[in-house]
Amino acid sequence: MPASPEPQQTIALVVRHNTAGIDEPVRAIVDFLRGAGYRAVFEAETATHVGVDGVEAMSVEQIGEQAHTAIVIGGDGTMLGIARQLARYHTPLIGINQGRLGFMTDIPIDRMLPALGEILNGKATAEERSLLEARILREGKQIHCSVAVNDVVVARGTGAGMAELKVTVDGQFMYNQRSDGLIVSTPTGSTAYALSAGGPLLHPTLAGTVLVPIAPHALSNRPIVVPDTSEIVVEIMNGRDISVNFDMQTVASLQHGDQIVISRSPDTITFLHPEGWSYYHTLREKLHWNEYPSSDGKLK
Amino acid sequence: MPASPEPQQTIALVVRHNTAGIDEPVRAIVDFLRGAGYRAVFEAETATHVGVDGVEAMSVEQIGEQAHTAIVIGGDGTMLGIARQLARYHTPLIGINQGRLGFMTDIPIDRMLPALGEILNGKATAEERSLLEARILREGKQIHCSVAVNDVVVARGTGAGMAELKVTVDGQFMYNQRSDGLIVSTPTGSTAYALSAGGPLLHPTLAGTVLVPIAPHALSNRPIVVPDTSEIVVEIMNGRDISVNFDMQTVASLQHGDQIVISRSPDTITFLHPEGWSYYHTLREKLHWNEYPSSDGKLK
Amino acid sequence: MPASPEPQQTIALVVRHNTAGIDEPVRAIVDFLRGAGYRAVFEAETATHVGVDGVEAMSVEQIGEQAHTAIVIGGDGTMLGIARQLARYHTPLIGINQGRLGFMTDIPIDRMLPALGEILNGKATAEERSLLEARILREGKQIHCSVAVNDVVVARGTGAGMAELKVTVDGQFMYNQRSDGLIVSTPTGSTAYALSAGGPLLHPTLAGTVLVPIAPHALSNRPIVVPDTSEIVVEIMNGRDISVNFDMQTVASLQHGDQIVISRSPDTITFLHPEGWSYYHTLREKLHWNEYPSSDGKLK
Amino acid sequence: MPASPEPQQTIALVVRHNTAGIDEPVRAIVDFLRGAGYRAVFEAETATHVGVDGVEAMSVEQIGEQAHTAIVIGGDGTMLGIARQLARYHTPLIGINQGRLGFMTDIPIDRMLPALGEILNGKATAEERSLLEARILREGKQIHCSVAVNDVVVARGTGAGMAELKVTVDGQFMYNQRSDGLIVSTPTGSTAYALSAGGPLLHPTLAGTVLVPIAPHALSNRPIVVPDTSEIVVEIMNGRDISVNFDMQTVASLQHGDQIVISRSPDTITFLHPEGWSYYHTLREKLHWNEYPSSDGKLK
Repeated sequence: MPASPEPQQTIALVVRHNTAGIDEPVRAIVDFLRGAGYRAVFEAETATHVGVDGVEAMSVEQIGEQAHTAIVIGGDGTMLGIARQLARYHTPLIGINQGRLGFMTDIPIDRMLPALGEILNGKATAEERSLLEARILREGKQIHCSVAVNDVVVARGTGAGMAELKVTVDGQFMYNQRSDGLIVSTPTGSTAYALSAGGPLLHPTLAGTVLVPIAPHALSNRPIVVPDTSEIVVEIMNGRDISVNFDMQTVASLQHGDQIVISRSPDTITFLHPEGWSYYHTLREKLHWNEYPSSDGKLK
Repeated sequence: MPASPEPQQTIALVVRHNTAGIDEPVRAIVDFLRGAGYRAVFEAETATHVGVDGVEAMSVEQIGEQAHTAIVIGGDGTMLGIARQLARYHTPLIGINQGRLGFMTDIPIDRMLPALGEILNGKATAEERSLLEARILREGKQIHCSVAVNDVVVARGTGAGMAELKVTVDGQFMYNQRSDGLIVSTPTGSTAYALSAGGPLLHPTLAGTVLVPIAPHALSNRPIVVPDTSEIVVEIMNGRDISVNFDMQTVASLQHGDQIVISRSPDTITFLHPEGWSYYHTLREKLHWNEYPSSDGKLK
Repeated sequence: MPASPEPQQTIALVVRHNTAGIDEPVRAIVDFLRGAGYRAVFEAETATHVGVDGVEAMSVEQIGEQAHTAIVIGGDGTMLGIARQLARYHTPLIGINQGRLGFMTDIPIDRMLPALGEILNGKATAEERSLLEARILREGKQIHCSVAVNDVVVARGTGAGMAELKVTVDGQFMYNQRSDGLIVSTPTGSTAYALSAGGPLLHPTLAGTVLVPIAPHALSNRPIVVPDTSEIVVEIMNGRDISVNFDMQTVASLQHGDQIVISRSPDTITFLHPEGWSYYHTLREKLHWNEYPSSDGKLK
Repeated sequence: MPASPEPQQTIALVVRHNTAGIDEPVRAIVDFLRGAGYRAVFEAETATHVGVDGVEAMSVEQIGEQAHTAIVIGGDGTMLGIARQLARYHTPLIGINQGRLGFMTDIPIDRMLPALGEILNGKATAEERSLLEARILREGKQIHCSVAVNDVVVARGTGAGMAELKVTVDGQFMYNQRSDGLIVSTPTGSTAYALSAGGPLLHPTLAGTVLVPIAPHALSNRPIVVPDTSEIVVEIMNGRDISVNFDMQTVASLQHGDQIVISRSPDTITFLHPEGWSYYHTLREKLHWNEYPSSDGKLK
């Protein structure tokens, strides 16, 4: 990526809503991009709440079709939302976090300009993440289709009895599981809800999908990692008030007999990181791997 | 307990709804009790669905006041429901299971008459179980009070973000927990939902209450067992669609600032088991402790 | 594979030591193979303890070079031992279990002849399993090299303080882990020791390797699955009495500074199963996924 | 406890070995104690390595018989060692930590003088901790007896196959467990090794003992908490190279048939904390309960 692009390249900014004091850094980025010869645009919703004038707004579709890169300022939640929408366009994403670092928004706001400079000058580590695509079938007909960056979650409502879910992988019956629900997660999602529910970490380049039961009745039920080429079918066998979420956003209430067919999406997401970025460094920081409960709890 | 009681003692029968083929065993028990000189009565709802004529019906209150013992025929769910109602009357309970054995309904239906005979002749192991009492406070006023045999569960709804709960024990701040919810469980409940969520087993005679987080965000969050004399206060700090359940029955939707004050109930439940009954035997049976995933998975 | 092979093909038999009543089934297999036109041979150690005369013995090397297939009669332990030795020769393996079924020895002895017939007639599901290769470096020099079908385990001895292990993956620092040890496991090993230590299940076709800490000091330490193309280096930083095992067989005591370099072996193992074999069926059987701790522990 | 005691009371100092820069704070404590009218003495081993002259040395026995209080400067390991020895004398203990805070050594060295002043003036929270006593029986004869502040651990050696342990509680058979070993822990030990192995936290005032299996073969094996009045017998059924540790110090190699009989010790330990001390505060600090892996991992 040349420092002075020709013809002028478009870079989109997506900014988290309700973020105090964000106007100033956003203005700094806009100035920085223009100074480097780029055309800076705002994602349409961002344009309505950021107090920076004179920046053109674009719909997500327009960004997908026209932007060279999208810069996301916020947290992992903001990144998740826009990444899912831009996946089909393969727009590379850069994440800036104004609070504590995220798994996906890994550039601290106080180093954002030098980091952006490096990345836009090609000193970047590109990292590709896979997505899940899920179709909901009712009586054999598709009633919904969506993609998920983190996870597809089928879960019972509060106060309802256990969900009974039948899971089939590539046409082979895996189990009938009674539980609070089931998380089907990408490597990206393995550090989110799946981790809280007891799932393993999956390195982002692992070609795998993990199924993590939530509070399963059978004590021998364990997370299982299958190749990401697998087709996973979750069928609602029993239970009340069951619904399916994509990246924690409720999509649909489900009925007995409904099937959720989950497979790897043909689209992927590309994150751009400053050179020297390390996935394990992020893990250590976020999971406090260097901190111990007691320096003396075990005698040496 | 003498074999021919004088004056005539009342024994109540509580039978699970919708249980095929249950009339015959119930009739056998009624005949057996009458033959031994007892007055057999049906709990009122049982009377409406069991096809055995000529047996007087009593309300739960009447049973509590008049019955010497209650015999429950069904599963642990049936036992839970009636035990909670009878707790204030201290009526001893005998559990007969017509399917696979329960933790609380431990007499198989095909041995019920000899087992009842032994127990009613005093060859019984009496086992006392503690209960939890929980009061819900809104703006300092009590809006609900109930008891739980197994557990009090505060949990978020499907599709809602994490619940943030502030937990205080005996006036000391324990933590602000972000999770799907929190299970506060008796030893009896430690083999139910708390176990699915990763909690430890508590022996029924342990004077303890366990707090088990459901899918907690902080990976270092662990179940904690406190003395059952503790007063545990759970306050709703954040999250949508949060409710509280007693023994999995939804009681109330909660608002931010609501407090659930949980302590040991002054009442207890007494189960009567045939002599030789062993809690650990039940655990081994129910948890398959004698079965191993592989006889050769680890080389010897 | 034709039913009447020409020229005559060799099939080797490997039988577990100290197995009462095994001579008769072994003789039946020998007769069956000869009847089908095969040359049956015994692995050398098998020949010393099986009471069947008139069968030629071969060393493992000879079997590797000459045998068309090896039939293993015993449990997963027997299979593990021979599979590791035959991996370099790519000899397909058939597992017969005379006790309860294993993960790798999946043909029950009472159905062995029809199952063998089907497999040798080509009605077989071939399943390829990956192996790990580990080299031990001391002061930069290789002092040992071995392969593992299940796992490479670095662990402290009893009574020694925690081991401190530094883990590097593809040249990137992952963590310094204080624990009882670390299990590096193939998908095959994910149902063995790694599972006991809290690891996830990995489908045999997943191109992944899982690192499972044993009793880690940091509570946020979790199993992590990395691509099986990764080079994993475990360095001994601290601790006494640390050793490394391959498939639970102790190989070497380790010193501070020693490095174990683990990568996917270029060799693989091929299991032959009767048609219709299902990995998930084996999981359900071995892990009791159809059995629940309580049918009524949770109210419905 | 009066500020100017009469007759002069003895306070013992126990200081961790090999602690750089510790002489100065130790001297400050000695001066402070003398200034307040106390007689300061060193535990005998402390006297050999601390560079402070003119302080009398006492054996642990003399301290137990004569000292009013013992001040421990070091970490939880130092505290564990002396607490076990002083338990029979009921000498109250004050813990000062010169590094990061411990669970038992909770006074930071930079606040030690004001904290000691408060405690010695009676502004103290006394906290009593229970201990375990274990006797090892071989062919019915006691070959060893010892106490443990944290835990009694029975475990296999590296490279040995699984240990098979038979556990009996109050004469009732609990299970035959195949595992790496078993941790029997006090509430105090529940934050040490038992926690790493997946055990729950036990509040120090809970009258309970927890059994935590280490890497158990049966996936349904869970930690279980029993009343601390229980007598727990662990019998070695199978396995090689099995030994028993008390607070991580190896006591004895075990043979098949050996029994470890574990019960609550009649002695207890008393810790003196500054007023306002909170167990939960320590937990939060040590377990990082206020820190989350991701502020955005779950969408809100």
